[in-house]
Amino acid sequence: MKILIVNGPNLNLVGEREPHLYGTTTFDELLESLNIDFPEHSIDYFQSNHCGHLIDKLQTAKIEYGGIVLNAGGYTHTSVALGDAVAALRIPLVEVHLTNIFAREPYRHNSYISKSAKTVVCGAGMLGYKWAVEYLVANFSI
Amino acid sequence: MKILIVNGPNLNLVGEREPHLYGTTTFDELLESLNIDFPEHSIDYFQSNHCGHLIDKLQTAKIEYGGIVLNAGGYTHTSVALGDAVAALRIPLVEVHLTNIFAREPYRHNSYISKSAKTVVCGAGMLGYKWAVEYLVANFSI
Amino acid sequence: MKILIVNGPNLNLVGEREPHLYGTTTFDELLESLNIDFPEHSIDYFQSNHCGHLIDKLQTAKIEYGGIVLNAGGYTHTSVALGDAVAALRIPLVEVHLTNIFAREPYRHNSYISKSAKTVVCGAGMLGYKWAVEYLVANFSI
Amino acid sequence: MKILIVNGPNLNLVGEREPHLYGTTTFDELLESLNIDFPEHSIDYFQSNHCGHLIDKLQTAKIEYGGIVLNAGGYTHTSVALGDAVAALRIPLVEVHLTNIFAREPYRHNSYISKSAKTVVCGAGMLGYKWAVEYLVANFSI
Amino acid sequence: MKILIVNGPNLNLVGEREPHLYGTTTFDELLESLNIDFPEHSIDYFQSNHCGHLIDKLQTAKIEYGGIVLNAGGYTHTSVALGDAVAALRIPLVEVHLTNIFAREPYRHNSYISKSAKTVVCGAGMLGYKWAVEYLVANFSI
Amino acid sequence: MKILIVNGPNLNLVGEREPHLYGTTTFDELLESLNIDFPEHSIDYFQSNHCGHLIDKLQTAKIEYGGIVLNAGGYTHTSVALGDAVAALRIPLVEVHLTNIFAREPYRHNSYISKSAKTVVCGAGMLGYKWAVEYLVANFSI
Amino acid sequence: MKILIVNGPNLNLVGEREPHLYGTTTFDELLESLNIDFPEHSIDYFQSNHCGHLIDKLQTAKIEYGGIVLNAGGYTHTSVALGDAVAALRIPLVEVHLTNIFAREPYRHNSYISKSAKTVVCGAGMLGYKWAVEYLVANFSI
Amino acid sequence: MKILIVNGPNLNLVGEREPHLYGTTTFDELLESLNIDFPEHSIDYFQSNHCGHLIDKLQTAKIEYGGIVLNAGGYTHTSVALGDAVAALRIPLVEVHLTNIFAREPYRHNSYISKSAKTVVCGAGMLGYKWAVEYLVANFSI
Amino acid sequence: MKILIVNGPNLNLVGEREPHLYGTTTFDELLESLNIDFPEHSIDYFQSNHCGHLIDKLQTAKIEYGGIVLNAGGYTHTSVALGDAVAALRIPLVEVHLTNIFAREPYRHNSYISKSAKTVVCGAGMLGYKWAVEYLVANFSI
Amino acid sequence: MKILIVNGPNLNLVGEREPHLYGTTTFDELLESLNIDFPEHSIDYFQSNHCGHLIDKLQTAKIEYGGIVLNAGGYTHTSVALGDAVAALRIPLVEVHLTNIFAREPYRHNSYISKSAKTVVCGAGMLGYKWAVEYLVANFSI
Amino acid sequence: MKILIVNGPNLNLVGEREPHLYGTTTFDELLESLNIDFPEHSIDYFQSNHCGHLIDKLQTAKIEYGGIVLNAGGYTHTSVALGDAVAALRIPLVEVHLTNIFAREPYRHNSYISKSAKTVVCGAGMLGYKWAVEYLVANFSI
Amino acid sequence: MKILIVNGPNLNLVGEREPHLYGTTTFDELLESLNIDFPEHSIDYFQSNHCGHLIDKLQTAKIEYGGIVLNAGGYTHTSVALGDAVAALRIPLVEVHLTNIFAREPYRHNSYISKSAKTVVCGAGMLGYKWAVEYLVANFSI
Repeated sequence: MKILIVNGPNLNLVGEREPHLYGTTTFDELLESLNIDFPEHSIDYFQSNHCGHLIDKLQTAKIEYGGIVLNAGGYTHTSVALGDAVAALRIPLVEVHLTNIFAREPYRHNSYISKSAKTVVCGAGMLGYKWAVEYLVANFSI
Repeated sequence: MKILIVNGPNLNLVGEREPHLYGTTTFDELLESLNIDFPEHSIDYFQSNHCGHLIDKLQTAKIEYGGIVLNAGGYTHTSVALGDAVAALRIPLVEVHLTNIFAREPYRHNSYISKSAKTVVCGAGMLGYKWAVEYLVANFSI
Repeated sequence: MKILIVNGPNLNLVGEREPHLYGTTTFDELLESLNIDFPEHSIDYFQSNHCGHLIDKLQTAKIEYGGIVLNAGGYTHTSVALGDAVAALRIPLVEVHLTNIFAREPYRHNSYISKSAKTVVCGAGMLGYKWAVEYLVANFSI
Repeated sequence: MKILIVNGPNLNLVGEREPHLYGTTTFDELLESLNIDFPEHSIDYFQSNHCGHLIDKLQTAKIEYGGIVLNAGGYTHTSVALGDAVAALRIPLVEVHLTNIFAREPYRHNSYISKSAKTVVCGAGMLGYKWAVEYLVANFSI
Repeated sequence: MKILIVNGPNLNLVGEREPHLYGTTTFDELLESLNIDFPEHSIDYFQSNHCGHLIDKLQTAKIEYGGIVLNAGGYTHTSVALGDAVAALRIPLVEVHLTNIFAREPYRHNSYISKSAKTVVCGAGMLGYKWAVEYLVANFSI
Repeated sequence: MKILIVNGPNLNLVGEREPHLYGTTTFDELLESLNIDFPEHSIDYFQSNHCGHLIDKLQTAKIEYGGIVLNAGGYTHTSVALGDAVAALRIPLVEVHLTNIFAREPYRHNSYISKSAKTVVCGAGMLGYKWAVEYLVANFSI
Repeated sequence: MKILIVNGPNLNLVGEREPHLYGTTTFDELLESLNIDFPEHSIDYFQSNHCGHLIDKLQTAKIEYGGIVLNAGGYTHTSVALGDAVAALRIPLVEVHLTNIFAREPYRHNSYISKSAKTVVCGAGMLGYKWAVEYLVANFSI
Repeated sequence: MKILIVNGPNLNLVGEREPHLYGTTTFDELLESLNIDFPEHSIDYFQSNHCGHLIDKLQTAKIEYGGIVLNAGGYTHTSVALGDAVAALRIPLVEVHLTNIFAREPYRHNSYISKSAKTVVCGAGMLGYKWAVEYLVANFSI
Repeated sequence: MKILIVNGPNLNLVGEREPHLYGTTTFDELLESLNIDFPEHSIDYFQSNHCGHLIDKLQTAKIEYGGIVLNAGGYTHTSVALGDAVAALRIPLVEVHLTNIFAREPYRHNSYISKSAKTVVCGAGMLGYKWAVEYLVANFSI
Repeated sequence: MKILIVNGPNLNLVGEREPHLYGTTTFDELLESLNIDFPEHSIDYFQSNHCGHLIDKLQTAKIEYGGIVLNAGGYTHTSVALGDAVAALRIPLVEVHLTNIFAREPYRHNSYISKSAKTVVCGAGMLGYKWAVEYLVANFSI
Repeated sequence: MKILIVNGPNLNLVGEREPHLYGTTTFDELLESLNIDFPEHSIDYFQSNHCGHLIDKLQTAKIEYGGIVLNAGGYTHTSVALGDAVAALRIPLVEVHLTNIFAREPYRHNSYISKSAKTVVCGAGMLGYKWAVEYLVANFSI
Repeated sequence: MKILIVNGPNLNLVGEREPHLYGTTTFDELLESLNIDFPEHSIDYFQSNHCGHLIDKLQTAKIEYGGIVLNAGGYTHTSVALGDAVAALRIPLVEVHLTNIFAREPYRHNSYISKSAKTVVCGAGMLGYKWAVEYLVANFSI
């Protein structure tokens, strides 16, 4: 099964930015460890700070991939356009947040993505990405 | 008269995405049919999933074009920046939505564009674009 | 195809009331011009300032007409009863507003009619009525 | 005891309009069956789509009748004027709704009539009218 | 100067309905006393429980009268259509309420009429009508 | 037909607590009178002040009973858990309130139960329970 | 009858400040004219920009005066303390505003004074003060 | 490591209630499978429909257990008392929901538990419980 | 005078739970000290984490006791049922909170109990209970 | 210990104003009784209807006094400035209200003072002041 | 150019109160330094904790001064009366706040003064006053 | 000290777009004048209409620059992602707006940037940028 991890704005800084919130593991290290955990599956990674790039990527991803793991960062809470792109996908998507967004500012409690996601995981740090892949593989690999 | 149709995020998928909502006609087909309906006028088309590209385009469009037809998709409801770009235009603009946004989710009822638009059409599908061009030609061609 | 245009409160004054908002064309002139534009169809006109009369008319219209064009004026925003009458229609209805109601007071942004309308046009003045008829003819005449 | 049933907008269509919501019994049939159920009492019926007619009727009813059964339809939720008319009655009134309005759209949850009603019944269809009469007879017939 | 007093729903009951709120004077008595107070002016009276009739009357009043005194009763708070009719008047209008609506239920605090009224008087009972006439005469009689 | 009446918190005090609100009949007397009114049916009674007991009872009731009459008292307005228990029932349920809850405090206007109830009766006192049984028998007894 | 007119903040500037809103008559001129209109009554005047002074004055006024005319200016909308002082008065009070506050910013629509006032007049300019005195004299002079 | 799974109201019905929402696996089956997945750890299970029992259990659990997995069902959204009990725990807790609560009714979007939870998982069905255990073991077993 | 102190959820942990919020005194110690302070009165104590038990207790308490001191903990803010039980009491009740709930989360600012309480004390820790007893003794012992 | 009691607007009228709300004891009588209850401490009293005076007093009080008892009356709910003055105090403050403000109008439920107060007492009448002094003496006298 | 600096409640404590928020410079020191920075201009200073004094001062300032620098402290957010006084000024005014009010409590985000101010500076401490003077001198000195 | 000025959407049009709002100076002219005012410091300029570009730039800026001046235009009010990028900066940032945003539409009153900014300046036009640089140099240059 081919799976794409899509990360939104500021997530390229993880491991560096506010480690008390986001931890010290980088996404390079995550990808390495996911390849070990899921050797029979192919996992790609994409990050952008641009809402438009995220939409572009999601639109094309549905041809190549069997599932998406999406952490849309700050756009989660503000972008109807990104939510529409997710709603138009025909492949399963898992929404991940590194932190427990429901324990943070109220403006982080709304998500335009959740209604189209199969599952939402937040607050488990990098473990959330592993679970997302596990969920997709368990339910949607053939 | 030169007219520019500007389409926002996910509208490149029309004809493919959620046909029960958006129909099966593509914008290539629309453009062809508009050229037949308005042979004396020149109609260009631009689409982007990037809010910034839409703003860039609108800023430069006002030199070349006599009117704009804008369907800003999901950015309609969330982008003050795009609304500001529309407010700064000196040429007439018609706001179009394929679906009846007022019969959908509440977060689609607000538009940062409407206050600067001459006319708003929604729910008439591709016909809305034809009406927008008709409106511009009828009122603003010399 | 037989089409009925139904106008609500104060629209009998159009051409006279607040011309900077509603223009100077009267509905008599509109009807004349629609008869020229759609010679093969029959277009009737009804106006009342009474919410009850509008409901009465809509209830009986569905026997005689193939489509309705409705501008319910101020009742658009306040009458659940009128919205119920529209919801109970079995023939297609287009909602029209002369002005761009979304660029006016907030209490004009809600419509009890939109959810049952095929299409909503606002801000195009009398042109909106022509489009409404065009829409009905294009999609519902046999 | 003389009782008046007052029905508001669109209720003349019951038995025809949206039968999955309102059932197939008409009010003619209801009246017949009420006359059988309450042979010692006189039950009249009034329906109008006009808010003003309903107010006119309620104002005069208090002379002739000992109790009112009112289903004000869509005006229930929007008419302070009708609520004032009910508040000014000196005879007991039961509020009836065919459907369970509290399981429908939020704008149907408010009633300007309830605060002056003795009892509210909703969702029991035609049975609600029978109960209303039963309540009036049981508590207010001499 | 010709002045029209327009009274809305349930005001025909004044003198009878809830005297602790509305007093015991009737509008017949008021008119008589106004004719004595303003012998050089002509004062007419109109009452209806129908929102549509009030709009009809206001539309035609502007030809015959030099000023309007309006107590729209319960429609004050709910009828955009009536507010539009008032906004379209070209003659001065004074808004009157018998009771102090700002000391009653919150839903009586909003008025669709106030923004187009010259003056608002509430809570002074029948005296408010006299003041309204006095205001019109003082400022608008020639 | 076997029917269970389930009463929630403080309803054990009826006949004693605030008689101007709830009357002086007790539920023992009600049950007696229901047995006389519906001799061919079996009617049981359950009351608890504990939300958890009400949920326990509803979960097991669906095996034994053909219909439920539920007055959840104060839990009506606050317990999503109880609403979920009702939603999971496979037998018909009628919601009853002794008083007209819509004429009381705003926090009594919301019900987590209504959306899953067949019918809602409020303000008819003990009569509401009789109607609820009548409704169940009329529509669901075999 | 002894009557006290109490004016709040910025009303000392009337006749000078924003004449398009407040007119050109000063309160000295008003007082003169009131003395002519009501020769048998004694009318005093007090103005302060201090909320505390207004409260002090109202507390002592009830011994000396038979009625109060209060225009609390900006404190109308924000001072619970002033509202409490009015509520504690045992003499009748009329609330006056020079402008129609209900046609201005929303934060001017709330009044902490209205609920304790006998009558509210707004938008009639200086005429409002005369009416207030007339009301007090008509209803409360012995 | 000793871990306690605490399930709230109606979760005893899982496998039976609304299988399109909650699936067909029972918690007995889950526990069996968790014992296989985490053979070195001890996992206990508790379910109650009573909010008070859940609080009682949480209070005593902190002595015996090293971590809690909590699905509080409908009490999640309404019980400050339960949220306080969670806040007073000194052992780590993971919040689990079978369904994606953020894609359901708005009243399910608030959680009094999240702010004290380490991680929130929703919409992954039974898999969520496994992840919760995995998270506790990975981060808190010694 | 016999007085009952009723404590709600999590208050059994006081002296142990979050001492920076609730202090280190236990309720056993409080009771001892109250017996010394009020030797002529009898003070009993009841605590439960179950909302239903609190209601049960309050219902029976009114026979035996002359006054109630109630700290309903988290149920204060969410339980209409408990508020109803308090409203149905015929003996005086004082509401106590250990912490200053008005300086904490907004969802702790609402109380369903206050409207039926004689007095509310919050933020004084154990002293609040002493004051509550003092209040009851001073005002209601015979 | 030196303690200052600060009373805000209208509290000089206590014993006179609305005795059903505020009782018949005056603050002179209170002070006398406090001097008897706390003979070893010095208690001063200050009252003003001016928000500015209250702020002036609080600013200078912190030099002379060891604790403050503040009943800010109507300014409690509206004055950020007064709240700031309290927040800038370095001595302990107890907030007192004669009535149970949480059982009155919603606009009395917010307090700009509570967040900086040690304790809040409301609804105990004059007893609240005694408790406030007791609290300060018990916790802050050396 | 003559410029008046007007400071509102609690600003007399700056240099002393909460130095982590407001710094340690006093306004005496500020004035000295402004006299050095703007030797050709005359700068006066006024501070009061009384809203009424601030209004008095602003009313008279417009005769003597060419510009105002206003930091209204807590009255900024609550005083319509003060906002009216500013709106009535005919000389330019700059609004200054020592702290970044938009990063503090929500009730500090609203300002009744901003709409009449030329410029708003917040969060720059004493530097904000210097900028305000610089702005007035640059734009309004002759 | 190296300082970067970052301008968001539509600010490339300043000097051209709506000069009554934004003035006629361009940013080229501003930069020139800043270089003259601060000859010992290096000031760079970046503008983009793309939210993603602004985030990209801010992420890399913190290596090269000692301070940021940010006018995020319309994204100020809508982009959580941009706010997160600012929050993750380790260098000081000043927020600037050409116009007084607090005197414009309500949707311009919220800023996701303010909470992480040192200072906010709005309404001073190009002068605001100069002040921002002055602030950074005064406080953060070494």
